[in-house]
Amino acid sequence: MPTAVCLVSGGMDSLVALALARQKTPEVALLHVNYGHLTESRELKAFTEVADYYGIGRRLVVDIGYLHEIGGSALTDPSIPLPVGRLDRPEIPVSYVPFRNANLLAVATSWAEVLNAGEIYIGAVEEDSSGYPDCRESFFRAFNLVIREGTRPETLIQIVAPLLHLTKKQIVETGVELKVPFHLTWSCYRASELACGTCDSCLLRLKGFSEAGVADPIGYAR
Amino acid sequence: MPTAVCLVSGGMDSLVALALARQKTPEVALLHVNYGHLTESRELKAFTEVADYYGIGRRLVVDIGYLHEIGGSALTDPSIPLPVGRLDRPEIPVSYVPFRNANLLAVATSWAEVLNAGEIYIGAVEEDSSGYPDCRESFFRAFNLVIREGTRPETLIQIVAPLLHLTKKQIVETGVELKVPFHLTWSCYRASELACGTCDSCLLRLKGFSEAGVADPIGYAR
Repeated sequence: MPTAVCLVSGGMDSLVALALARQKTPEVALLHVNYGHLTESRELKAFTEVADYYGIGRRLVVDIGYLHEIGGSALTDPSIPLPVGRLDRPEIPVSYVPFRNANLLAVATSWAEVLNAGEIYIGAVEEDSSGYPDCRESFFRAFNLVIREGTRPETLIQIVAPLLHLTKKQIVETGVELKVPFHLTWSCYRASELACGTCDSCLLRLKGFSEAGVADPIGYAR
Repeated sequence: MPTAVCLVSGGMDSLVALALARQKTPEVALLHVNYGHLTESRELKAFTEVADYYGIGRRLVVDIGYLHEIGGSALTDPSIPLPVGRLDRPEIPVSYVPFRNANLLAVATSWAEVLNAGEIYIGAVEEDSSGYPDCRESFFRAFNLVIREGTRPETLIQIVAPLLHLTKKQIVETGVELKVPFHLTWSCYRASELACGTCDSCLLRLKGFSEAGVADPIGYAR
């Protein structure tokens, strides 16, 4: 039986988190969540290729397309334009999907409780990130409390967010060290063929590879 | 715009919680969640009839059928038999759906944040209940903290669980006082035609009506 559930989006961060999980725990179960976002099918492809790469059979792909219906984010509502080319905005960006990570962690906890897995890995990044509220350490600490109070007394599940206080540079370096297949990952918010290179997610990714002095193996439109 | 999101399952408790919400707040939005449980379509019918009864147009019906796939509960896995006819078991019953209410509240919070609604009503009962961990006050308190930490700084959402410390008798009495349409509700875990009268949910409901000295308007197989 798996000892950890890993949330794997198909992006670079959750891949590195997965690689770190595999160092610590023999058996992992992979959870991927489609939430009606623009690049949903491209990310699912990346998830599948990453899972295949590591030969991990225990997978659950879950659809919470209601987040598309609820909207309120440029990732799930095509009428809200994704901003181009700046990372220094002080406010929470329009790509924030309201309370998305709580929805993801709720699914992961339900699954982990049934699997009797003690850890949930998530590749969230606090410092060098877009500034989403549901990527903060205080959020994960509070969620651990919700898990303790809302599950069976014998259920002991902890959220592990090993990248939380790493920079994007350090995440790339860790990935290189662990020989992760960065070429299989997808980070772009906008496109599904060539990454746009201008959305927040592309900018953060490119910054990480650039600062680490490593070539990003995926293709960009610009 | 609605000021509260009400989770309405189609059962008696969430109906009374909705009636209490309507007393306090002018506009409510109704959220119903299908989670792949045995009586899903019967409860959806009850939800729709309750919403129609009150003439509430703002509704969201969400599917989280992954809880069926995850299983681990007699409500979502038909191979786990539902127990018959006892309410005095000390352990958490097999009808507990792992971490279900966290999944429901995560959806409700995402929606409430987009609607800018300040309250989420849930008809959870702690004392006179089946003893599910995700129906305890400590769980809702912890979830309020998760909402605070995981949403925009300007988002202020509180979970309101007005039935938490009521007995089933008091819930029936409150419903009678508020003239709620109990005849439209569905509580049975097992059946969708005539309520079984023997599952925990039927037993709790019948106990409430009996102690309140009120006739339950729905039909029972026994």
